[in-house]
Amino acid sequence: MISNRLTELLGIDHPVVCAPMGSVSGGRLTSAVTRAGGLGLVGVSYGDAAFIDEHVAEAAEAGGVWGVGCVMFTFDDRPGLWDKVLGYAPPVVALSFGDAAQVHKYVASATDAGSRVVVQVHDPEQARVAVQAGASVLVAQGAEAGGHHRTLATLPLIPAVVEVTQGEVPVVAAGGFADGRGLAAALALGADGVMMGTRFAATEESLATTGFKSRLVSARTADTIRTHAFDVVRGIPWPAGHPARSIGNDFTRTWTGRDAELTAQRATVEPEWAAAVARDDTSQRAMFAGEVLDLIQDIQPAAQVVHSTVSEAEEILAGLNQRINGRTSTA
Amino acid sequence: MISNRLTELLGIDHPVVCAPMGSVSGGRLTSAVTRAGGLGLVGVSYGDAAFIDEHVAEAAEAGGVWGVGCVMFTFDDRPGLWDKVLGYAPPVVALSFGDAAQVHKYVASATDAGSRVVVQVHDPEQARVAVQAGASVLVAQGAEAGGHHRTLATLPLIPAVVEVTQGEVPVVAAGGFADGRGLAAALALGADGVMMGTRFAATEESLATTGFKSRLVSARTADTIRTHAFDVVRGIPWPAGHPARSIGNDFTRTWTGRDAELTAQRATVEPEWAAAVARDDTSQRAMFAGEVLDLIQDIQPAAQVVHSTVSEAEEILAGLNQRINGRTSTA
Repeated sequence: MISNRLTELLGIDHPVVCAPMGSVSGGRLTSAVTRAGGLGLVGVSYGDAAFIDEHVAEAAEAGGVWGVGCVMFTFDDRPGLWDKVLGYAPPVVALSFGDAAQVHKYVASATDAGSRVVVQVHDPEQARVAVQAGASVLVAQGAEAGGHHRTLATLPLIPAVVEVTQGEVPVVAAGGFADGRGLAAALALGADGVMMGTRFAATEESLATTGFKSRLVSARTADTIRTHAFDVVRGIPWPAGHPARSIGNDFTRTWTGRDAELTAQRATVEPEWAAAVARDDTSQRAMFAGEVLDLIQDIQPAAQVVHSTVSEAEEILAGLNQRINGRTSTA
Repeated sequence: MISNRLTELLGIDHPVVCAPMGSVSGGRLTSAVTRAGGLGLVGVSYGDAAFIDEHVAEAAEAGGVWGVGCVMFTFDDRPGLWDKVLGYAPPVVALSFGDAAQVHKYVASATDAGSRVVVQVHDPEQARVAVQAGASVLVAQGAEAGGHHRTLATLPLIPAVVEVTQGEVPVVAAGGFADGRGLAAALALGADGVMMGTRFAATEESLATTGFKSRLVSARTADTIRTHAFDVVRGIPWPAGHPARSIGNDFTRTWTGRDAELTAQRATVEPEWAAAVARDDTSQRAMFAGEVLDLIQDIQPAAQVVHSTVSEAEEILAGLNQRINGRTSTA
């Protein structure tokens, strides 16, 4: 067992969090991770009432320590949707991608609703803001992450974020983690746990499509690229400086770096693209994935991911400690 | 003591390597790291006969387990300079940035000269090539590194490189490391040690100028940028896809992303730039540094860096092992 202030604060068995991936982290994956002793988070993302009523409801019914993950900036003009999310009384609300004012606003309202609030940050300054706003837990996400992210890499980001929090709140490391080696490294860097996305997308319970899951297994880390193309074609107004990491395909090769052109041609491109997505065409669809594809070889049950990550980390840390004490020597 | 196959193979006390930074890792820094029980490497880089005769000679005279670091592609048309390097009989030769043919050629000739050969790689395929060519040790360098690098980040790169080497050779992790937290994390990821550049640039013994050292302490991680501008202005023909990470300044703000223009205007820009560098003008000079500036607060003796890195890693790993065994609980 890896017990620490994160597991104690949240009341979970293992310091392993499933990222709230839009269109991927549904009720089934969330409750599978929660049942296995980790923290499952439904990917509410930009919000969709039907998705919330299906998947947040499913997670709520399964119970345990579960939560929702929301992209802050997209709820500002839809207070009704935000209230709908909180109406399901999620034990944990994970917030990402908002400015300082949005962090203060959404932390306050989720806290008022009785949820523990997790805030994702990408640099030490954002960490200061989140702690000041009253976050219970920080997620420090590096640029290795799949989907949206910013520029700093995880490895040096974690200790820098831990330092500015001065031990006030637990820090969950995110971006580049897929197994127990990563969890052990995150703990060594001063984090209290890991959030994994891509590894959980590649599970039996995820909502990832058959084509997407197949590419999660067959693609390599070097196949991932950073692009705005999927946001532009979907018309989602991400602020500047937030690329999304996806497995590259014909669509990204055609449109990455041509945001203005794609915006101009969106009326004709979007319907065709949406039709391709609907038929799970992997040459066109977004396949958000982190720099961990070299570490993923199969689709697993989510519970196996949770348990093997923890047991592998335990073995690694015990083995290293033995070696330092000189009790064994490596070959 | 952290003893493993890396320390045993090289005959060093600590699995801590000082990166062979051009114009920074001279004889004094190299021998200080070597005397402290790590591995010091003189930054021969592109090669300069006078620099070699001063600094490689100094390291050779100090003795112990020391080495040189060379950028392969730049020695192809200067075999005399390569022979001059090998003439100092470095116990270790660290090679970086060459294609498969160059890796085979330089590994063979350094091995023939009696040196242990370390090859830096940036993805699993390069790791396969280096092992096949006969490298004794791999350095797996991620994109967090200062100076030249490629695209993959360190955290997920290390386990991927360790996997393809199938345990045949020790792997040193590089890019994003500055202290014992990083060393502990590297060991957890399956590496056998760390190479640190920026942290050693910020030492008393480094050749970094006063202005550069001052910025290493005052600048933050978010101030680093990736640029080709310093290579273009110096006329060094780096192959495509090898940006260098530097602390940003007026020069990078003016010229990054304008390679063709800078090439065209080089005859007029270069003399002025070189004069600014000669007077240690930090608004103009290259200040290669990795994504670790948030973790560096002072200029230290190199021996202190080696020793504190190791002792901090030992403490972290012992503490984590205790916590897993449930003997203590964190606050």
